[in-house]
Amino acid sequence: MQDIRIGFGQINPVVGDFAANASQIKQQILQAANRCDLLVFGELALCGYPLGDLSYRSDIIHATEAALDDIVKFTAEPLIAELTVVIGHVAAAEERPESQVSYARAHNSATVVRGGQILGRYDKQRLPNYDVFDDWRNFVPGHSELIFEVNQRKVAVAICEDIWNTDAARSQALRDQGVELVVVPNGSPYTRDKMASRRMAARRFQNGFALAYANLSGGQDDLVFDGDSFLIDPSGSEIMRAGSTSGLWVDSLPIAEPEVNDAESLFRALVTGTRDYCAKTGQSKIILGLSGGIDSALSCAIACEAIGAENVLGVALPSRYSSEHSLSDAKALASALGCEFRVESIQDAHLVLERQLGLSGVAAENVQARVRAVILMGISNQENRLLLTTGNKSELAVGYSTIYGDSAGGFAPIKDVLKTDVWRLSRWYNEYQAREVIPTSSIEKAPSAELRPDQKDQDSLPDYELLDSVLALLIEQFMTVDEVVAAGFDRELVSEIDEMVRRSEWKRSQGAIGPKTTALSFGSGRRVPITTRFGKL
Amino acid sequence: MQDIRIGFGQINPVVGDFAANASQIKQQILQAANRCDLLVFGELALCGYPLGDLSYRSDIIHATEAALDDIVKFTAEPLIAELTVVIGHVAAAEERPESQVSYARAHNSATVVRGGQILGRYDKQRLPNYDVFDDWRNFVPGHSELIFEVNQRKVAVAICEDIWNTDAARSQALRDQGVELVVVPNGSPYTRDKMASRRMAARRFQNGFALAYANLSGGQDDLVFDGDSFLIDPSGSEIMRAGSTSGLWVDSLPIAEPEVNDAESLFRALVTGTRDYCAKTGQSKIILGLSGGIDSALSCAIACEAIGAENVLGVALPSRYSSEHSLSDAKALASALGCEFRVESIQDAHLVLERQLGLSGVAAENVQARVRAVILMGISNQENRLLLTTGNKSELAVGYSTIYGDSAGGFAPIKDVLKTDVWRLSRWYNEYQAREVIPTSSIEKAPSAELRPDQKDQDSLPDYELLDSVLALLIEQFMTVDEVVAAGFDRELVSEIDEMVRRSEWKRSQGAIGPKTTALSFGSGRRVPITTRFGKL
Repeated sequence: MQDIRIGFGQINPVVGDFAANASQIKQQILQAANRCDLLVFGELALCGYPLGDLSYRSDIIHATEAALDDIVKFTAEPLIAELTVVIGHVAAAEERPESQVSYARAHNSATVVRGGQILGRYDKQRLPNYDVFDDWRNFVPGHSELIFEVNQRKVAVAICEDIWNTDAARSQALRDQGVELVVVPNGSPYTRDKMASRRMAARRFQNGFALAYANLSGGQDDLVFDGDSFLIDPSGSEIMRAGSTSGLWVDSLPIAEPEVNDAESLFRALVTGTRDYCAKTGQSKIILGLSGGIDSALSCAIACEAIGAENVLGVALPSRYSSEHSLSDAKALASALGCEFRVESIQDAHLVLERQLGLSGVAAENVQARVRAVILMGISNQENRLLLTTGNKSELAVGYSTIYGDSAGGFAPIKDVLKTDVWRLSRWYNEYQAREVIPTSSIEKAPSAELRPDQKDQDSLPDYELLDSVLALLIEQFMTVDEVVAAGFDRELVSEIDEMVRRSEWKRSQGAIGPKTTALSFGSGRRVPITTRFGKL
Repeated sequence: MQDIRIGFGQINPVVGDFAANASQIKQQILQAANRCDLLVFGELALCGYPLGDLSYRSDIIHATEAALDDIVKFTAEPLIAELTVVIGHVAAAEERPESQVSYARAHNSATVVRGGQILGRYDKQRLPNYDVFDDWRNFVPGHSELIFEVNQRKVAVAICEDIWNTDAARSQALRDQGVELVVVPNGSPYTRDKMASRRMAARRFQNGFALAYANLSGGQDDLVFDGDSFLIDPSGSEIMRAGSTSGLWVDSLPIAEPEVNDAESLFRALVTGTRDYCAKTGQSKIILGLSGGIDSALSCAIACEAIGAENVLGVALPSRYSSEHSLSDAKALASALGCEFRVESIQDAHLVLERQLGLSGVAAENVQARVRAVILMGISNQENRLLLTTGNKSELAVGYSTIYGDSAGGFAPIKDVLKTDVWRLSRWYNEYQAREVIPTSSIEKAPSAELRPDQKDQDSLPDYELLDSVLALLIEQFMTVDEVVAAGFDRELVSEIDEMVRRSEWKRSQGAIGPKTTALSFGSGRRVPITTRFGKL
């Protein structure tokens, strides 16, 4: 598209913060005025994405429409009057189709604006209703194309899912109408293979036209929008690529084949998710327990990158079962990261409760984890610090955690990272920092909850390499036990893991949110009954 | 329908327990053989409802189909070969329509069986996608009518949402084809006004034909199926009504206009939800904290009704701020109910933690609630007792609870009951028992969390009558702040409540499930972002 200079307004909106979102949009417009002919923003950029059931609310819809009016007026300013702007927003819908049995009363729309005039509005047609997406619940589908001109070239609009797995008729119709460019506002959350699949979807949708894919930036609850807006020419060649950060993107980053499971981009996504959860909920300080183990170490590194080490407090909470290295590893980590470090022994409270209750076995073990939570939440409340819970996806999957104990916390930075990837990320982080930030001993020692003498995770769980391989198939690839067995795993092992997953459903139902990084993260993307006997037969 | 004797197989299935569900179905068939011509079961009765994303799993679909085959063979037995049976189940789907962007691969179906033969299968057409319902996510819609004959009368099938708010064309077409009866398997969860609205929907759908509305019975996670199967003649007159319990219903209960907000049916629904959560997850004993207040008192009564007082343990957990009456009221309650009662002081652990951490204000208050949770969960783990959390909907709405403290628990029996209704139910329960089971002083004293001296709920919250009126409008009637103000409430008050609701979203996201009793219960029926700034502007 040499004839149209395209910019991407890759902003980081907050759901419901119309003033701040509109202000970001205006800033991008001002910056783009001299450099671009066409500026494209992400899906629902003006109101924030995802709205969830807030899309039902007339006050949200009206506030969005008012903010849009204001931006339209703003584009009449002489300096920017030549710029064509595509803005994603929620808009009132007239009526739902008969087949849609929902409370939806709004469209997921994009309005095209130039010189103080609205050139038209496009309403998203394909409404995804899988994984974390609830669009069919929340929005009314549109049915019409919007074609407008920029520099005498015909441009059409599609929104996000519109270009995924669509039949060829629509693309053909666009081509038949002479469309040379399709602009696509997206709310496309990060997963590890998403860069590649976005390009695949875009190329499959193309039919002789160029395609400008505009994404959002930043974290919103359990989703991380990793930017990655891009432009491909009619042949499918990528000619412009944005990074992940918020801002106006006109010039391209170097273009290479996207890497799947890239450690750096995964780490960055976890940092972004944590940073924006803090920023958008108005929390500037973090607390977390440091066990000397690898999960809390990696989580602490993420926290320090997210909000600055000076705002992070790591607390070691030793018990009589804690090994010497637990405390020294925790201390070494905090010192390497430069965050605050305290030691709060759980020994006194543990002894009191132990004597009072006379518990044994797992019940007694859990008390230690829960006393830690009381201490951490006490400091959290006292000092206004967000408590991070540092469980990984493998533990979460099989229920290897103490509810109201180590699972306590407002945000779970590595909840969608399998244990083997926690190791991988930790090694990467040390390489990236070119020094031993995460103690090698934390990486190399056998994982232990240290709730009884000489306890090791592997006393209760399969080897993590094996466990993670099975979990990836069962959870992320939706396989049945039979299918996993057919893939080459032992039936007894797979059934045991499947049973552990099912038995811990209730714990996960009370879990903290954290950044989604895979096709299936525990949370709103996985909706299964707590009560089920399937598989026990 | 004098020519067709209709029975309702109002069973209480467990999701995924094909053997047990099929066995219940066969039992009903045997019992109905001599008494009925037509036996109708509820929606997805064979596999359990709701399935959630388990509907994606080929193993679930195959196991259901195998169980259905077995039942079909069973109906060839000479004694029951004349009986026509309609069974709800999940079934493999061929392909999704283009407009459905989901992972669904199954229909929500009902198969008609007689004498070892399948007369046909009907697939649900209207797939609800609002509140707790995710049918459009989980099922592929059907498009064909199924009309079969019983005693030379034409009978058609519709499933649940199919008859709600449908356009008149379908009913007219059924009438045109000579249909005299429509049988409707339902998975219709209890809410307080549901009996009336079911009949309204059924009558609106009717067009010269009778209608047999078959519901499920029993609790499944956060839903309670209250039975209430019924038969209305072509004129809309109700000629048969079932109760709420599981079993074969052929004879009618007395028919009267259904009462909305009936205390007894509400109490029964809470008991059923609690009982079946225990039964279906294999838990036979309950523990809960007894504060001497009304919420824990009512919850304890529910627990005793659900699983027997001998299986319920109430624990008083006094602190130095507990008043004398707290302990005596708790003890009187346990004694009146006949459940086990213990006293575990939190004083020692509280003192240790208080000295160690030097907390103040709310942080110090919360420690007490969290120490209670550690003690309750310790006993819960040690004695295999399900911990109930006893917060009411008003508290939950405004975040008036301590996370990992009094909010800890696997099931929340009164989470969808406003405080004013907690009082009402407690008074009703004493009247119903014709004695003071719940101490009058628990009902009449000013509510207090007793986390500091002389603390009263009303120091931090609006008057409960006022609070509940506003919450009912904001939450259950989906009103905006402006709309609530227009309904006659003070703007400052409404804004303050709205802000408290928004600020506590993260706590609710980690809350326990409990029985839905209203149009909008906090949980899977309300999907809003944790992070939002709307309303703060």
